[in-house]
Amino acid sequence: MIAEVLAVGTELLLGQIQDTNSSWIGEQLALAGIDCLYQAKVGDNLPRIVEALAAALERSDAVVVCGGLGPTQDDLTRDAIAVLLGVPLVRDDAIATKIAAMFASRGRAMPANNLRQADVPEGCSTIAQQPGTAPGLLCPVGDTGKVIFAVPGVPYEMREMVSGTVIPELASRAGLSSVILSRTLRTWGQSESGLAEMLDDHMTSLDHSGEATLAFLASGIEGIKVRVTAKSSSEALAVSVLDAQELLLRGLLDELVFGLDDTTMEAAVCELLAARRLTLALAESVTGGMIASRYSAVAGASSVFRGGVVAYQPDVKRSLLGVPDGPVVTAEAACAMATGVARLLGADVGLATTGVAGPDDAEGVAIGTVFIGLCLGGTVEAVEVRLPGDRERVRWYGTISASDLLRRRLSRLQ
Amino acid sequence: MIAEVLAVGTELLLGQIQDTNSSWIGEQLALAGIDCLYQAKVGDNLPRIVEALAAALERSDAVVVCGGLGPTQDDLTRDAIAVLLGVPLVRDDAIATKIAAMFASRGRAMPANNLRQADVPEGCSTIAQQPGTAPGLLCPVGDTGKVIFAVPGVPYEMREMVSGTVIPELASRAGLSSVILSRTLRTWGQSESGLAEMLDDHMTSLDHSGEATLAFLASGIEGIKVRVTAKSSSEALAVSVLDAQELLLRGLLDELVFGLDDTTMEAAVCELLAARRLTLALAESVTGGMIASRYSAVAGASSVFRGGVVAYQPDVKRSLLGVPDGPVVTAEAACAMATGVARLLGADVGLATTGVAGPDDAEGVAIGTVFIGLCLGGTVEAVEVRLPGDRERVRWYGTISASDLLRRRLSRLQ
Repeated sequence: MIAEVLAVGTELLLGQIQDTNSSWIGEQLALAGIDCLYQAKVGDNLPRIVEALAAALERSDAVVVCGGLGPTQDDLTRDAIAVLLGVPLVRDDAIATKIAAMFASRGRAMPANNLRQADVPEGCSTIAQQPGTAPGLLCPVGDTGKVIFAVPGVPYEMREMVSGTVIPELASRAGLSSVILSRTLRTWGQSESGLAEMLDDHMTSLDHSGEATLAFLASGIEGIKVRVTAKSSSEALAVSVLDAQELLLRGLLDELVFGLDDTTMEAAVCELLAARRLTLALAESVTGGMIASRYSAVAGASSVFRGGVVAYQPDVKRSLLGVPDGPVVTAEAACAMATGVARLLGADVGLATTGVAGPDDAEGVAIGTVFIGLCLGGTVEAVEVRLPGDRERVRWYGTISASDLLRRRLSRLQ
Repeated sequence: MIAEVLAVGTELLLGQIQDTNSSWIGEQLALAGIDCLYQAKVGDNLPRIVEALAAALERSDAVVVCGGLGPTQDDLTRDAIAVLLGVPLVRDDAIATKIAAMFASRGRAMPANNLRQADVPEGCSTIAQQPGTAPGLLCPVGDTGKVIFAVPGVPYEMREMVSGTVIPELASRAGLSSVILSRTLRTWGQSESGLAEMLDDHMTSLDHSGEATLAFLASGIEGIKVRVTAKSSSEALAVSVLDAQELLLRGLLDELVFGLDDTTMEAAVCELLAARRLTLALAESVTGGMIASRYSAVAGASSVFRGGVVAYQPDVKRSLLGVPDGPVVTAEAACAMATGVARLLGADVGLATTGVAGPDDAEGVAIGTVFIGLCLGGTVEAVEVRLPGDRERVRWYGTISASDLLRRRLSRLQ
């Protein structure tokens, strides 16, 4: 089974937005053991989309077309598939009703061209949309056994349809017997090359045994990911390989590992706090609310996360958090902020950041300097970190570094 | 002159790294007035690279191949071009000497296969490498007048060759005098299809005149972008078309437009606040710090942004912000939060959010319901919005909706 990906959108060719969908779909196909030998981008132009689809179907068994399913005049994927298959577009009344109902429930008038999203090339079936307005399409190509999938360009809608429908359908058409599974260890505290060096011997032995492969992925505020992938004849076997690898890697990386797969640093901390029946309050200066927004994104955070203060101005740090007069990018200020916010919000733990994100040095302190204050179990401490990069990355790394300090301290509390 | 881009590398298809080169090259081509109708990715496989090159040359005048010029066995671009042109590879002694000298100057032994980078398909010329070891290639395709450019996949090497050699060469071959420029109007308050309907007549007239094109792009927390692109014989003419279009579109979209190009909603609000000498404080529940983190990301926000309180727990809303007893997802609570935070942080303006992001309804209030509280110039108001989507999107849309309310109110204050 060979599948390829066609991304539709003039803005992709013009470099106005990055086509991140194709590489995500490519990864999902690879993980499912489906070969993907080509990917292409084409603009919002009917004859060229038809031509690109025809070329793709000539060399591959399946094409996943991404984008061009919206309601506007330049959304042409439906039309292109109809032209290619030589069939008319037929309006699906159930989908039209659903689209109209969605607008009604939001108390908004529906522009008439939204109903274009209910048009389906004859002979094709739809992939349920949830909760966007454009359904995906599953289009068998005559009696060739080949198939076109059309999914929206909006990433979360695309991902749901690809994971839920496209990949399972392709795997079943391919009669795939081998199973490829991955597990990702989420780490913080070592560079990518540092991790590679720590795992060098282990990777050499994997190269010989061939039972799994390792890959590293630096992911900014999400830390550095170490992904282990196993290809086996059954799911049970693949899982047992991953279990053994996880155990080995945890042994080698130790405290650097904060979680698995989709577990964010903040989710890991929430779990540790919940187990210890502790609550958290945040005082943010340089990170400006970024830490709070990530804790409040954790489902179930409300049992441990009380809230925070964004003390962007020095006088707010003083009046609200009790930071003493003098410079505010110091270890003392970070300690005072952590203690002050825990008291103000009635939390067991106070975590604080103060630092310089740039564009310029401030108070004679270099860009990238961040003090993390932590007040936990009656002790207060501040840790100074030096972070690389521009304003945005200093804020990212400050955010993950602050929670990482709390995570390490909590891990040692029984 | 039509050019296309072919990115070479199996890791691109597998999604292990993002192909950011193609979109960058696409943007450079567009800015130089060279049409780019297709982009493709292909793996490190000789016959498939040859096939992809042949397909590209069939429909385009020039192909920019990116990647596959390194020293290892899976770098096959040179070989593929030689196969396609039916010529042998010839070692360029001057380049070989240069490569050997670079290793010597760094005191390192040179692996023999590095000399592969000095191989040039007969009849092709090289694009000087600076400072990588692989030169680029400029390959005329027989007597067709068509051309293949090969550039490395390493972004900074690629960029230098594309800007310094590929684009000027293509422009001169095309005898080009036309320039393509874009401008983006950032909007909030209408759906993508609603915008399309509002601009329907205008788009029809543009279709006839051909002087500019419009595109829509839904960008989550960044709002919905309306991009206008003009192709003219000079930069001055393109700018005057964009100026005229911007004026027209602002007339049609009116208050929906909050800024241009890279201006975020928060940057637009900061500018309005600064012009009116007002300072801002935030009280966030459902958005959990996301609004604050976006204000603190605006360079220069410190002159207007005082900070905020993330009041995730109801009792924090009450004790710190003075929200009265009773339910906290109400218009009254939003008003009290806005007033309370402005007083607490000594700000002129207080902006607050309280709502239900899910996963479940809360206090009998449906998911997606958000109350925005605003205390400004002595008056306090709350606006209820109903937002679509999951937890993350409710928080995104709540974030941009809150600042949009403030923006509209500030715009009317003289």
